[in-house]
Amino acid sequence: MSLDPARLSFNQITADHLSLEAAVEASAAEGIGWFGPWRHKLGPGAAEHIHGAGLRVSSLCRGGFFAAETAAARAERANDNRLAVEQAAELGTDVLVLVCGPAPDGDLEGARRQVLEGIEALLPHSAEHGVRLGIEPLHPMMIAERSVVVTLAQALDLAERFDPAEVGVVVDAYHVWWDPELDAQVDRAAGRILGYHVSDWLSPTPDVLAGRGMMGDGVIDLPGIRARVEATGYHGPIEVEVINPALAELSSAELMATVRARFERCC
Amino acid sequence: MSLDPARLSFNQITADHLSLEAAVEASAAEGIGWFGPWRHKLGPGAAEHIHGAGLRVSSLCRGGFFAAETAAARAERANDNRLAVEQAAELGTDVLVLVCGPAPDGDLEGARRQVLEGIEALLPHSAEHGVRLGIEPLHPMMIAERSVVVTLAQALDLAERFDPAEVGVVVDAYHVWWDPELDAQVDRAAGRILGYHVSDWLSPTPDVLAGRGMMGDGVIDLPGIRARVEATGYHGPIEVEVINPALAELSSAELMATVRARFERCC
Repeated sequence: MSLDPARLSFNQITADHLSLEAAVEASAAEGIGWFGPWRHKLGPGAAEHIHGAGLRVSSLCRGGFFAAETAAARAERANDNRLAVEQAAELGTDVLVLVCGPAPDGDLEGARRQVLEGIEALLPHSAEHGVRLGIEPLHPMMIAERSVVVTLAQALDLAERFDPAEVGVVVDAYHVWWDPELDAQVDRAAGRILGYHVSDWLSPTPDVLAGRGMMGDGVIDLPGIRARVEATGYHGPIEVEVINPALAELSSAELMATVRARFERCC
Repeated sequence: MSLDPARLSFNQITADHLSLEAAVEASAAEGIGWFGPWRHKLGPGAAEHIHGAGLRVSSLCRGGFFAAETAAARAERANDNRLAVEQAAELGTDVLVLVCGPAPDGDLEGARRQVLEGIEALLPHSAEHGVRLGIEPLHPMMIAERSVVVTLAQALDLAERFDPAEVGVVVDAYHVWWDPELDAQVDRAAGRILGYHVSDWLSPTPDVLAGRGMMGDGVIDLPGIRARVEATGYHGPIEVEVINPALAELSSAELMATVRARFERCC
């Protein structure tokens, strides 16, 4: 059975070579109903442009990167995260994706403590703006550059310290499919899943950070993971987030048609 | 405090560009006491050559790759694993490293069951030859090509089904350093650790399968992990296993001197 394209959200990083405006227009032209912007693409009028094209915003990517070597640097990150919350609210989404950041000095445990402290500090501001924080565990191979939070269990250990109306998790199939604990942890995440992302794992993987595949080109059991996620009660948008510079070789229309076709057939 | 080089074992894959004979000679010339051969380098007289140079064999790499699509293919793997056991015994080591292999068809759970069945089937032969099976969890980024066993917890779940005199685990810092459960799982592995391997995690990582760094060039807390491993009672050889084709640019003497110096200073 093919997946209802009404649930498809086009995550901007899949077309990082396009402006937000161009990506929004191409999404709308393909009949895609949701859009997932990244902050580095936001400019004046972004919200109006997205909504004007008839798209809804599934989440804003991203806050996080909490750990830093100095108190001054951590304060700067905290300010930036408050701004991210405000941007999410302005875009009309209630989900801010948190990519928690690496350990600045190799001390994983210390960095993990700073992540917790960073979320605690951000919480009053995000709650006030009606924005939920979605902790996204990243694949362990990204630990040195992107996130000391590398398993769904770890993300849930963090999230469960807070009200589920305020802090949850984002499940990205690419980041979690390898996990022997996946089924149990997805079940545990019931009521906390704020977003579900898809792409595929290419074998061999061409690049640690930007080597993702279009759904159907790799080895992840995407229908199986989606079924498990939906069994928890999550029926929200599904973001297609394929980070691979080779996609820039397609025209925006070809890219969107491929995204939609693979979404319907392979997810 | 620098680490006693008497515990250093040179894992052959660190110099895959050299013959076994050349790697053994260069190791011995540097005063290294142990050697970790790989099967594809073994030829007639390998054991005599290693022992004649005054080196002991810390382990043989590798058996495993249990899962396959057909019964005939699985039987072939089983035969090959029995041969690996015999080769380990002939080399005078009691440790055969198991790299468990990928899922041939994307079914991770099915492949994990076949790994268990493969170990069960191999056990009478390995016990008879006095060879212990060391299940090595590989980094999750290697799941599609090398191993469906990707965490120490998972390796221990397998190993604990058997007598610790017959089945244990091999801890490679490169494969496990990211794991939020690492400390707890190393503690749990007490009495089951059959080997400890080191290299370093480069940031960024240049290649998923062959992008490892020399100890000290990356971000892993190697002294911390070793201390935890030793607290379980493991005081055996430590294999230096740096898979990176760039090392072929060094002369064998330069390579061995670097390995020994980094081992003493950074591990």
